[in-house]
Amino acid sequence: MTETFHALETSAAMDATRALDTPCLLLDGDKLERNCDRMRERLLSHGVALRPHVKTAKCVEVAVTALRAPAGPITVSTLREAEYFADHGFKDILYAVGMVADKVPRAAQLVKRGIDLGVIVDSVDAARGLVAAAERAGVRLPALIEIDSDGHRAGVTPDDPRLLEIASALGPSLKGVMTHAGESYNCTTVGAIEVMAQHEREAVVNAAKALRAHSHEAPVVSVGSTPTATFARSFEGVTEVRTGVYVFQDLVMAGLGVCSVNDIALSVLATVIGHQREKNWLITDAGWMALSRDRGTARQKVDQGYGLVCDAAGRPLEPLIVADANQEHGIVARRDRGPIDFARFPIGARLRVLPNHACATAAQFPEYQVLREGCALEAWERFSGW
Amino acid sequence: MTETFHALETSAAMDATRALDTPCLLLDGDKLERNCDRMRERLLSHGVALRPHVKTAKCVEVAVTALRAPAGPITVSTLREAEYFADHGFKDILYAVGMVADKVPRAAQLVKRGIDLGVIVDSVDAARGLVAAAERAGVRLPALIEIDSDGHRAGVTPDDPRLLEIASALGPSLKGVMTHAGESYNCTTVGAIEVMAQHEREAVVNAAKALRAHSHEAPVVSVGSTPTATFARSFEGVTEVRTGVYVFQDLVMAGLGVCSVNDIALSVLATVIGHQREKNWLITDAGWMALSRDRGTARQKVDQGYGLVCDAAGRPLEPLIVADANQEHGIVARRDRGPIDFARFPIGARLRVLPNHACATAAQFPEYQVLREGCALEAWERFSGW
Repeated sequence: MTETFHALETSAAMDATRALDTPCLLLDGDKLERNCDRMRERLLSHGVALRPHVKTAKCVEVAVTALRAPAGPITVSTLREAEYFADHGFKDILYAVGMVADKVPRAAQLVKRGIDLGVIVDSVDAARGLVAAAERAGVRLPALIEIDSDGHRAGVTPDDPRLLEIASALGPSLKGVMTHAGESYNCTTVGAIEVMAQHEREAVVNAAKALRAHSHEAPVVSVGSTPTATFARSFEGVTEVRTGVYVFQDLVMAGLGVCSVNDIALSVLATVIGHQREKNWLITDAGWMALSRDRGTARQKVDQGYGLVCDAAGRPLEPLIVADANQEHGIVARRDRGPIDFARFPIGARLRVLPNHACATAAQFPEYQVLREGCALEAWERFSGW
Repeated sequence: MTETFHALETSAAMDATRALDTPCLLLDGDKLERNCDRMRERLLSHGVALRPHVKTAKCVEVAVTALRAPAGPITVSTLREAEYFADHGFKDILYAVGMVADKVPRAAQLVKRGIDLGVIVDSVDAARGLVAAAERAGVRLPALIEIDSDGHRAGVTPDDPRLLEIASALGPSLKGVMTHAGESYNCTTVGAIEVMAQHEREAVVNAAKALRAHSHEAPVVSVGSTPTATFARSFEGVTEVRTGVYVFQDLVMAGLGVCSVNDIALSVLATVIGHQREKNWLITDAGWMALSRDRGTARQKVDQGYGLVCDAAGRPLEPLIVADANQEHGIVARRDRGPIDFARFPIGARLRVLPNHACATAAQFPEYQVLREGCALEAWERFSGW
């Protein structure tokens, strides 16, 4: 098998990133904008609202890019995200992880600041606990009932008699229904994602119908996952779409056919720190602490190890992958374990690694180094914690 | 199979942690001290110095506990760690990841502040780059040559002719040799770890002999990994031991026989947020963002999923494990997928999860909530980044 590496060429991107310490997190601002525009325009053409999930980026500038507005409706996965975005002017926030009474006092602080904070529940116990705790805190927390559309995680099925019991327990706090087609990450064809999108939509639309048939109001019908949002043929009856990873895309999404490798906006800049010539390994300073332990492509047709290796300008060096990782060491090898031309990758050379899972890799860093037309322009803060 | 769960009892620990928001990172200060004392006393009895690896905890208080002194020799995995600990009074620091010329200016700043900073190299190119860059920066960076004792990652073998070439390239910067028996994590018996410890020791002792036979000084002979440090029968010829994860211990170490599950000082406090009764799942608010994506026990005899579940007081609820994880959702199930007594784990109940890999799980949090005799006493800062 002959080597297909591109030559390592000097470029604006290499110059721009040369001054950065490695490992660091690069964000291609042009690709980010294209990914955001594509999804926003697609949903606009379907007449359905976008409520981006900010858990992927945890960054105000990325949310602003997704919305093409200084603020707008967002989805969060932690109360810390809700607080951070509220501090930055976002007022319409859905906390899309099951709410429990213990968390209500903290959520109530946001409501008292004028934030329109929605929550979700999927059991009568949680609904009763929520309503009682909100009453004690002197607020009302509008709630969606989480619907299970794919057996993936949480929620009640649309035909479960508990649906109506939860609605009754919520009373005037009931605002609608939501689901997340997490199983779409395990699809192997675009056709299968289309089918899953149909199930996702039908599950919430049917649940809303069941509620309305029993005199419950359910104005919000919310769905969301990047694969189903990308390939759904219809959003009929759906009022909003929550989607997160599309802003960056990643190797798992590329493996699903949701994007191409060239759409991936996020990468980790690394330095070659060693050669293991007998083993045909390059050693880099980007281990799992930088790349994360996510091995999401392990179950896909093409296993990308801990990430696909690119040159400093971001061009994939297929078949080089991060074959293994220690805490601060990446082990780069050819996918076929064949010989590496070490002269092309001297000690000190810079490489970029495309991530398996953008949410996990980005979480390892406190900021994004944003490139525009290949030139590093600015650092965007990313927060963490709960 | 009958259930073996302990009853959930009220205890000081449950009361102390009740006020904490979940997920958060708990550190049992008593277990931490016992783990630290055991290793320090063992190495003291062997007459070999301890240079704890602070990459596991990235926390000054933990390093102080390990050393039983306000400062002392430490090992770091990033220059950020070196800078942070230097800011907190630590002066003897080994940066144990292959050094490259680009990182020398930042390291030189530490040397100019009076820090005794050692570095490592494993190639002639890296050695030459290091010496030239240090000269340009106006400092000398003492260097150890990294020895490959197990084919795990980096280094040169003791009989590789490059060993002497690297020594010549380093010249007066040469300070000795070091190795890390990372393959010890893949052993399946204590006997195998003992053999690996012997190989680890012999590799560096032989490398030092080879250097000394050619008139190179090699005063430092450094080894390290928690399994080999725990079970080595001899440290003859070794001057220092670097070891990290022993301070916390974890499920991977317990699986290796290095510690018992009861020695594990670190856990993630979680709240039950949902019941999936048909699937026999509890849903918690500690997903992979809190637990990390590390699946280190997947290759061991007992696969602990994303962690072993305990009650709020830290008592294992065998056979409950975190069977799967999404970003902010943990899916708790019995190891045998058998029925769960949901009444014992109502919505809002607190659980603790013991981690597969303490280094990875701790890295997901900005601080430790430290318990003494079961009572939460204080928060210890943990830093991150590079």
